[in-house]
Amino acid sequence: MESVCKRIRDQRLHDRIVSAEEAASWIEDGMTLGLSGFTRAGDVKAVPFALAKRAEENPLKVNVFTGASLGSDVDKLFAEKNMINKRLPFQADATMRKGINAGDFHFVDQHLSHTSEWIRSNVLDTIDFAILEAIAVTEEGMVIPTTSIGNSMVFSQHAKNIIIEINTAQTELLEGIHDLYEPGPQGERQPIPLSAPSDRIGVKGIQVDVDKIRGIVFTHQEDSPSTIIEPDEETVVMAQHLITFLREEIKAGRLTEKLAPLQSGIGSVANAVFHGLLDSEFTDLEVYSEVLQDAVFDLLDAGKVKFASCCSITLSSEKMKSVFSNFETYRDRLLLRPQEISNHPELIRRMGLISINTALELDIYGNVNSTHVMGTKMMNGIGGSGDFARNARLGIFVTKSIAKDGKISSIVPFVSHVDHTEHDVDVIVTEQGYADLRGLAPRERVQKIIENCAHPLYREQLNEYYQEALKKGGQTPHVLEKAFSWHTNFEKNGTMLEKAAQPV
Amino acid sequence: MESVCKRIRDQRLHDRIVSAEEAASWIEDGMTLGLSGFTRAGDVKAVPFALAKRAEENPLKVNVFTGASLGSDVDKLFAEKNMINKRLPFQADATMRKGINAGDFHFVDQHLSHTSEWIRSNVLDTIDFAILEAIAVTEEGMVIPTTSIGNSMVFSQHAKNIIIEINTAQTELLEGIHDLYEPGPQGERQPIPLSAPSDRIGVKGIQVDVDKIRGIVFTHQEDSPSTIIEPDEETVVMAQHLITFLREEIKAGRLTEKLAPLQSGIGSVANAVFHGLLDSEFTDLEVYSEVLQDAVFDLLDAGKVKFASCCSITLSSEKMKSVFSNFETYRDRLLLRPQEISNHPELIRRMGLISINTALELDIYGNVNSTHVMGTKMMNGIGGSGDFARNARLGIFVTKSIAKDGKISSIVPFVSHVDHTEHDVDVIVTEQGYADLRGLAPRERVQKIIENCAHPLYREQLNEYYQEALKKGGQTPHVLEKAFSWHTNFEKNGTMLEKAAQPV
Repeated sequence: MESVCKRIRDQRLHDRIVSAEEAASWIEDGMTLGLSGFTRAGDVKAVPFALAKRAEENPLKVNVFTGASLGSDVDKLFAEKNMINKRLPFQADATMRKGINAGDFHFVDQHLSHTSEWIRSNVLDTIDFAILEAIAVTEEGMVIPTTSIGNSMVFSQHAKNIIIEINTAQTELLEGIHDLYEPGPQGERQPIPLSAPSDRIGVKGIQVDVDKIRGIVFTHQEDSPSTIIEPDEETVVMAQHLITFLREEIKAGRLTEKLAPLQSGIGSVANAVFHGLLDSEFTDLEVYSEVLQDAVFDLLDAGKVKFASCCSITLSSEKMKSVFSNFETYRDRLLLRPQEISNHPELIRRMGLISINTALELDIYGNVNSTHVMGTKMMNGIGGSGDFARNARLGIFVTKSIAKDGKISSIVPFVSHVDHTEHDVDVIVTEQGYADLRGLAPRERVQKIIENCAHPLYREQLNEYYQEALKKGGQTPHVLEKAFSWHTNFEKNGTMLEKAAQPV
Repeated sequence: MESVCKRIRDQRLHDRIVSAEEAASWIEDGMTLGLSGFTRAGDVKAVPFALAKRAEENPLKVNVFTGASLGSDVDKLFAEKNMINKRLPFQADATMRKGINAGDFHFVDQHLSHTSEWIRSNVLDTIDFAILEAIAVTEEGMVIPTTSIGNSMVFSQHAKNIIIEINTAQTELLEGIHDLYEPGPQGERQPIPLSAPSDRIGVKGIQVDVDKIRGIVFTHQEDSPSTIIEPDEETVVMAQHLITFLREEIKAGRLTEKLAPLQSGIGSVANAVFHGLLDSEFTDLEVYSEVLQDAVFDLLDAGKVKFASCCSITLSSEKMKSVFSNFETYRDRLLLRPQEISNHPELIRRMGLISINTALELDIYGNVNSTHVMGTKMMNGIGGSGDFARNARLGIFVTKSIAKDGKISSIVPFVSHVDHTEHDVDVIVTEQGYADLRGLAPRERVQKIIENCAHPLYREQLNEYYQEALKKGGQTPHVLEKAFSWHTNFEKNGTMLEKAAQPV
């Protein structure tokens, strides 16, 4: 009971504690759910499972809107049980991916800063239930989120009903590190008063209409740990290229050793880059990103990063233990924000971020595919990469130059799907080197990309394509008949290599 | 002399009056010029001609940075005389287009809000001469622009030297309608304090270092008039579809009859849409756009538009006479801004603009090509369409469903160049109807686009492609071997139609 009083400080809510099963029983076929959770952190862990259990006997389908990818295998489970009508704006689960690509349900792949606008302006289906993980509900009816914020604020404000999962496995020290800012409707909005990553502009929790809280469920379960892929030889080299580029920017007087607020997508290269910063001369760094992974905490520990703003904290099992058992040492150097604020074009442009995201493939003119394998199959989604790359001071894309032991070149004549156009891609980094494309016309970019970034195995083949294209002329020379021949060759012959060549 | 004193109010500058020829003589081979001018308005009219004349005897090449397209055939002349190394960020001249596509010089096609950031942060070549058209230079060394602002402010602040062209053919009543706001360097910036189109946030002219003013040239020449293409049967129908869509938005409670600040690209469809608004029930409209064309002044005259903010005023010959001879009646309902402010993501998103731009082609999933004919040949450039579509409340793209008497379908399986991705395209309008794509997954979009927007001549062929693609599966089904077959068919056979069909 002491725990209940600490966690549910509004006494009127004490009689709303229910089991996950009861809460799940309120959800009907065809409803729309707004779930907390962003890259496996701060997701709800009980009601979705109870709902999936119920669906075994009483099949139902729901729309599932989230912050980003969910942890606890919820996406997997919902896909397996065929419980989804529509899913947005991002996912990263293998089973769900399979369902999306089979056309079993609809997936809307959205810029992560955009979903909130559609909810707020009533473009999407009305949310029947917002289901949010929380540390506590305060006396004032404020819901204190846990390790992510995502779209929880806009979901709960616009939902008909709210279900709270109080997760007692999440440290209570998280209370106070959230900064909830509501921009208001478009057209009635004031400037967002944030000009540095450490600026606090909102309140510590999500103010909800407590009458809408239908039920409160208690859970005790940690976030799904992230799988950290240790830097390998190639990602270490990529990080070195990127750091070399940043040093050149300092030499040119365009950056100082404090760089500029850093954003990085998740994954092994980002991790390697941040590890690379540990041993660099850069100092007093700031992070303004979506997700904080292990490496940012290493940088905080080393005093390299002085402040980090994010939307979610996603850690490995080991790091989770060390961070959350010493969380008081981080509390004044961290802020969690809603994803529309962490990813807001206004703020990204104002602060002039250095943005580092991963490309799936890119082409000789610098267009980037972040989402579709061989042009058709969804991988995860565009996530925040578009919010950042378009508006950042430096839109940097990283990728290994080849995949599948050299059978795939990440650099192709024409990307099979475009997520980031030539207008938004400033710098490309592979393990071969980097290409600074700023201020270059398409024909100038080609040579830099092929020579600096493509794998030697594919350079000649890329040059041949370009030489043939050049005969046709144009601002962006192409041989349309052959533009996707690398992809179709891979589909037919299992390799993009046209000629017999030594395996890499 | 009276005129000189009125126009050059800083006495120190009186001895800097020179001929255009003398000013042009300072420009050397390899230099970079920053010219005023945006969509044929407010461009410099004497020094570029003198430079071209000089180049006949002493060939030279320069980089030419502008606001957008130039008037007075300067782009044509420079292209003809082979005087260009690099041109950015936009052009719209047939001769220049030919040179670009022949690879005679480099053209960097940029979001119009981005150029200023690259100048400010020293990413591009340093500007040797900023050459600006002005009404006057004030006592305080402020340069008062004429009918456009473009990038003039950032050019002059970062140029080594400045040349002013005082154009006495431009009405002095223009003084006071400019609002020059300097955001400052990224990372040291405050929020831009603008939340409505009529907000005045800056000063009336460009504050320059008068020591950098090398010379002042007097001219007396009107802007090149725009060629107004009167609404035809199809553009009138497109405007009606768009207005129907807006009415549906009002019914759904997402808009009021005041709509939201309107942005529109230039051209015949935009013109038709604005004409359509003349007879509509919408009222108290606001415009926040790049260019004001004739139709906006008709709407101001009719009291339909209460305020218009822009970066340039581009009028037909007739309208120019009527507007500038009665300019005092418009002065309190107009503001001209630098293009980074008229096109700023921060402001477009905050105000929630309704953005209407023209597509060259679009595909069955809603990706838009705004720039490249048959994937290779540059038309004009992306202009501000990306700044607006990405950040607007409604990113609307308009196009006629067919071109060249039906030999080209504007809706294809896969666009041959991507400027706007599926993530940024909300609504498509053709003369056939409109497709509201918001909240739809790719497979849901296909039917809407084909049925509502494609020309009947091509619907079956589009469906056949999609049915074949569906067999391959995926989030975005495609048959990569055939993705560009419509374009290659057109190149070989002069039509995108696969089967013998009646001419339209």
